Formats: sequence, C-alpha cells, structure tokens
Amino acid sequence: MKASNLPVDEARLWSDLMALAEITDPNKPYTRRSFTPLFLEGRAWLKQRFENAGLATRIDAGGNLIGRRPGAKPGNGTIVIGSHSDTVPSGGRFDGTAGVLAALEVARSLDERGHVLDHDLEVIDCLAEEVSAFGISCVGSRAIAGSLTDEMLAHVGPGGEQVADALRRVGGDPDRLAQAKRSDIAAYLELHIEQGPVLETEIVDLGIVETIAGITRLELTVAGRADHAGTTPMHLRRDALVAAAAIMSALRDLALEMSDRSEGYFVATIGEMHVEPNAANVIAGSVRLIVDARAERRLTMEHFVARLRERMPDVAAQNGAELTAITTLSDVLPAQGDAALCNALTEAADALGLTHRRMASGAGHDAVHFSRIAPAAMVFTPCRGGRSHCPEEWAEPGELAAGAAAMLGAILAIDRGAAKNGRD
Amino acid sequence: MKASNLPVDEARLWSDLMALAEITDPNKPYTRRSFTPLFLEGRAWLKQRFENAGLATRIDAGGNLIGRRPGAKPGNGTIVIGSHSDTVPSGGRFDGTAGVLAALEVARSLDERGHVLDHDLEVIDCLAEEVSAFGISCVGSRAIAGSLTDEMLAHVGPGGEQVADALRRVGGDPDRLAQAKRSDIAAYLELHIEQGPVLETEIVDLGIVETIAGITRLELTVAGRADHAGTTPMHLRRDALVAAAAIMSALRDLALEMSDRSEGYFVATIGEMHVEPNAANVIAGSVRLIVDARAERRLTMEHFVARLRERMPDVAAQNGAELTAITTLSDVLPAQGDAALCNALTEAADALGLTHRRMASGAGHDAVHFSRIAPAAMVFTPCRGGRSHCPEEWAEPGELAAGAAAMLGAILAIDRGAAKNGRD
Repeated sequence: MKASNLPVDEARLWSDLMALAEITDPNKPYTRRSFTPLFLEGRAWLKQRFENAGLATRIDAGGNLIGRRPGAKPGNGTIVIGSHSDTVPSGGRFDGTAGVLAALEVARSLDERGHVLDHDLEVIDCLAEEVSAFGISCVGSRAIAGSLTDEMLAHVGPGGEQVADALRRVGGDPDRLAQAKRSDIAAYLELHIEQGPVLETEIVDLGIVETIAGITRLELTVAGRADHAGTTPMHLRRDALVAAAAIMSALRDLALEMSDRSEGYFVATIGEMHVEPNAANVIAGSVRLIVDARAERRLTMEHFVARLRERMPDVAAQNGAELTAITTLSDVLPAQGDAALCNALTEAADALGLTHRRMASGAGHDAVHFSRIAPAAMVFTPCRGGRSHCPEEWAEPGELAAGAAAMLGAILAIDRGAAKNGRD
Repeated sequence: MKASNLPVDEARLWSDLMALAEITDPNKPYTRRSFTPLFLEGRAWLKQRFENAGLATRIDAGGNLIGRRPGAKPGNGTIVIGSHSDTVPSGGRFDGTAGVLAALEVARSLDERGHVLDHDLEVIDCLAEEVSAFGISCVGSRAIAGSLTDEMLAHVGPGGEQVADALRRVGGDPDRLAQAKRSDIAAYLELHIEQGPVLETEIVDLGIVETIAGITRLELTVAGRADHAGTTPMHLRRDALVAAAAIMSALRDLALEMSDRSEGYFVATIGEMHVEPNAANVIAGSVRLIVDARAERRLTMEHFVARLRERMPDVAAQNGAELTAITTLSDVLPAQGDAALCNALTEAADALGLTHRRMASGAGHDAVHFSRIAPAAMVFTPCRGGRSHCPEEWAEPGELAAGAAAMLGAILAIDRGAAKNGRD
C-alpha cells in the first residue's frame, strides 16, 4: 500500500471499531447478535456516534438505523453507504461493523471539509444481516428491496417470538413495511473485509466487487444398509459412508474442474454431513451431505448442478449404495455490481495510489438486496489469513482507512456526475 | 434344512423365546438392558423356567444366573451351555436369549429322556454381555475367566453407580469375585444367531465357529483449516473432509484387499465420524474417523494396522490436510474355538442331516472369555438379512431348534468321551 496521507481519519475509524467491539457478550467475544439487548446497546452507541457526526437519525420500518446528511439538490436521489452491526456468535470485530463505521467516517470527513454533496447521503446500519436465531438473514436490506415476505416475518425464534414482533422490538414496523422500500437510491456502496485470502495472498490493497456469487444449496441423501460392522463380509455390504466418501471426492473434482474454467469465480463445499446411526460397530445406513456452491455466473451454477445430478447417482451405485434424493435447499441468483460504480471505485483507488483488483464475492452481503433496486457496488479490504466469523478475524487500521478513502473518492465522483449511473 | 424330527421341542423353545421377549420396555421393543428392573424381571422369569426344568439355580459372584444338573461322575468337570439375556436398546428377540433358551431346552430334553450325563451340566445366563450403560461388556463371563478387573468394577453408570454396586444389586459379590472364577469347565458351548448374512446367503443350516475375530479400534484425526466456504478459492483450501473422504475410500480399498487374501475373515469399517464445525458454509477444520477392524488372524490385523499407518498420512497430505494422530482405542486378540468341540458339533450336525460350514465370528461373545480358561465353541444359526441389534432381528423356530439339537448331540459325544478334549 502506497497511500500515506488519506482523506479520512484512520485513528478515529479504528477507535470506533474497537469501542463497538467492546459491546459484546464477555463470555463469547465477539458476540452481538441481532435482536438481543447487546445489539440494542450497540445500536444506541451507534446512534449517538451518528448524531455527533451531524447526521439526523431514524429507524425505518425495516428496523434499519439510518443517519442522514441532506444534499444541496434534493431531487438528485440518495447515496447510501453502510453495512451491518450485528455479528455471528463468537464472531469478529470487522465483519459488518467495518462497513458501518467506514461509512460514518466518510460522512464525518465530508462534514469536516464543509463539503455538501448534491445528493442526500445516508449512512446505514442494516438490520440482522447475519443469519439470526430466527433462521433468516438480511432482514433490513430485504425490507429496503421490498423482498421481506410475510413468510419470513412469521419465522419463529427464541421463546416463540416471530420476526415481525422482534422487528417491532427494535423500532421497525412490520405493518408498514412498504415504507421501508426505497426507490430514491442513486447509489449503494458497501465496504467489507474480504473474508477470504485473495487480497492478502496477492498483496493487493482493495478488491472491487463486480459480482456477488449466487449461492445454491443442495442436500444429497445416500442410502445403504445399517448392518453389523463385525459380521457383514466386505463384499455383502451396502455402506452409505463409503459411497458418500466417493461422492465427496467426485464433487471436489467437479468443483476444481468448474473453478479452473475461465467462467468466473466458482467454489463448492461439503462442510456439513450427517451419518446414521454414526456408531463404530454399525455400517452407515444413510448419510446426508449438504453441498454449498457459489458461482459468479448463473450458467456455471446450472452447469454444475446438472453435472452433479448426472454423475453422482452413478458414483453412489458404483460404491454399493443409492443416491435417493437431491433436494434444493436454497437457490439465490448472483448479484451484479454496477459497472459505473465499480469504475468510480477503481479511479478513486488509482488516485490514492492504492493497488486493486476486480473480484467476485463468494459470501452474501446486504449489497445483494440493494443491487435489486439500485446501482450497487462493494469494496473489499484484506484480512488476515482469510479468517472471518471467528474471534481471530483481523484487519489493519490502514487497510480499512484505505477502503474508506476509496469509497469517499468514489462518492465525490458519483456526486458530481463523473460516474455514469449504470441504470441510466 | 433336511431335519424334521429333532430331539428337542421346537415349539417349546420358540414359546419361551417369545415369552421372554415380552419382558421389554413397551416403548422401545425389544429392550431389557442389564442391571435394569426389566432385566431383573427377565431373570426372575428365567430362574423359574430353570427350576421348572429341574435345574438347581444360583447366582455366582459375577452375577451370572446358573442352573445346575448334577452328573453321575462329579470328578469329570462341568459342561456349560448358555449365552446372555440382556439386550441393547431397541434390540431383537434372539441375540443372546436364543442361546440361553436353547441351552435350557437341551437340559429339558435330557431330563425328559432320563439321560444323566457323566459330567455336571450347567445352563448359564451370563451377566451383561452387551455394552451396558456402564460402558463395559461381558461382565459375567469376564468374572468367570478371572479377567474382570478392579478398574472395570469402578466404571460409573447411571446415577453415578459403580459396576461393583450394580453387581451387588443383581445378586453378585464383587468382594468375592475369585469365587466366580472357574477351573472345572470341561466344555463351553454357546448357540447364537449369526448376526450376519453368510448362512442365509449360502443356504446353510449351521455355522461352526472356529474363531472369534480380534477387534481393533483406531481413531484417525484429520486436521485442515476451517475457512469460509464462500470466500476461499478451491486451490487455497485445506479441507479436512475432502482428505477424510480420500482416507475412507483408501481404507475401504485396503480392507477389500485384506479380506480377499486367503488369510481368514477380515473386515474393516468406518461407521462413526465427527466433523468440526459441521456447518454448510464452513470448510471442515477437523474430522475424526473411528476405524473398527476385525481379523480372524492376529497377523492379518497387524499387517492391516501397519499398512494403514504407512499409507494414510500420504493420502491426507495429497488431499491438502494432515493426519495428525492415529490412536488405538482398543485391541482385543482373536479367540480360538476348541478343535475337538468343533468336530463334535460337526458330527452332530451330520448325524441330524443338517448342512454346516466352518466360519469365523466377526462379533464378540461370552465364548471369547470362556475360551481363555476352557475348551469352548459356538454354533451359529441363520438370521434374516443378517439383521441384528434391531427390532427386525429374526430367526425361524426350526433354525433355532436345529442348532439346539446339534448342541445336544455334541454334548452327548463330549460326555461319553467321543470328542477329544482340545486341552488334553
């Protein structure tokens, strides 16, 4: 990184991050799950910080905390910057919060320079981006995109509470959700730690996210026969785990093949499996494998799923068991970063002397939902070892400040019309 | 099966089996775990049946229920026949009980013919053959063999009770365990359902067990790195589950190779595994695999373990992870059936017109412990689909009666000295 004199206050941004991180379950750092008292404590702290920066705060019907800085030409629409302040259990200090506080730092920097944008500017802390105890993610950004459904509002969490009631508790209004839906957003920008190893490995300052990968989850059920492990000769077995092992290897080979093509980012993982009865002296009778696949291009995903459906039943059969079901658990389409916004981020990085690369995000983000209704883009900053969702998650102050500075530069360009809006 | 007019009462044996099976947890048929009130209820029923057959009953210091029929020449030693009446949770109606009740039927048949053996005859219900809630198997037969250790007696079960106290509760005497140890046993015979598919598949009436396989259990620990499944490119992963899958396939291949040699019975199974963190969106950071291997010959087992230790670290490394530990959880030597007793069973089967084959038992049995102190052999009868330790466990009345008849024929031969004692 060559930048040394950034137009944002690196120390102030860092100090905010460390202060918000302290609002955690002391027994499980860093934990501030959405809808909990700790989350509301973090929100109260954020609200105060927003107001200290001269932002007018409100909570919208979707439970999002918004700090607003009016622009000089109200009809130009709103530039929204932010991320989320909730964490996973035993998560880190950067995932989400870095984006919210970098956005706040951008607003403060503008304020200190006395720079009034033509556009309205909003800093946003989106509600419940992480999968909460209610089993649903991106509650706030879905509301803004108009895609928070009644079925989602009826999800039940701790103590039998429904999402709708939890939303009320944090200041939202499930009965007036339409008010949360936005049509005035001129641009959405989100800074986030990469949560992967690419920027660190390649020694690049910033990732400019062209695409957020689509995510498809499949459940594969392998059926064998649960016989006695001592008394069943090798050639009379129908061992579901032996077949599942062959499927796991074949799936890894297929994923490598798909990722090695020049068709954009692709990964596929089996990280979760369930063996029945899972006893040392019983041959596995059945195994369920959860496949998590992420593809930058929809066609790649469709190709992968088709190949999986074509190949894996044979792999199971050749190993003495049967692939009895391939069930789609979820299927989210890829989201495209706005070309003009990506260019604005690129030019801002160049102007700051920061190295950068285009990349796809393998993780989901609030930006996915904003991208459905407005031009949106993300900037990734490096993190150590690609670690995330764990207490060891780490980024350096200068890395985050560089990302905030690039976002500030892009906003100035967007505001003066130098960045052509991708929706025009 | 050609036998039609067997020297035992098939209907009476079957009726006993079905009656004992009724003494079960009604919500989890068929459950009568050792040391429980239901087990004691089953024992009380058995004691009555033993006494009705003219047997003098007692419970020895090892908690075994013994019914004795004195012989004409007390110095000749004791012929012991039996098995166990305890079950696994949700087990079957035949595993163990078939051996106890077939032994009772043999004693009744002798009684009805007025045939007094030269040897004393004992029918035995060995205590707690199955792994109980105390985490230990073959409590009673270990006591008879003198191998129930103080460490085993100190095992703790439900409510913090020790094995020693549980043993007292069922009528045993842990302070006088030496009294349970036997040196007078001239022969031990045990009938058991095969618990495997060989006899049914080959359409053979009886299995004469030459060897009870040794059992070695190993735990393999595979270490990778628990990264984000969405953001970690395929070529930067250290996926413990991908490596574990390769190990499972290689282990199956090795087991097939070992079992295809002409070195006696061999099987190896991974039926139990633990994945961390086992979440769909996280690459597996570590996997533990439990290997259960059974070998008729000790050299085969040693060869298998050596090959596993030699090969598997490379398999893990070639798949991007590390095999950090191979731990021996348990290691039991094979037990040999007595040659003279096996011949006596063979000749008895021939005389009855029953088909038979020599075989190894892949499962452990009370006979393992008797074989350490006396000539011992087992006779296996077919069961449906090899199913056992489940409510579907099934054998036909005639199959069990054929086994009992062969045991009776062998006892008569042993008693008249026609079967040369393998220890002479």
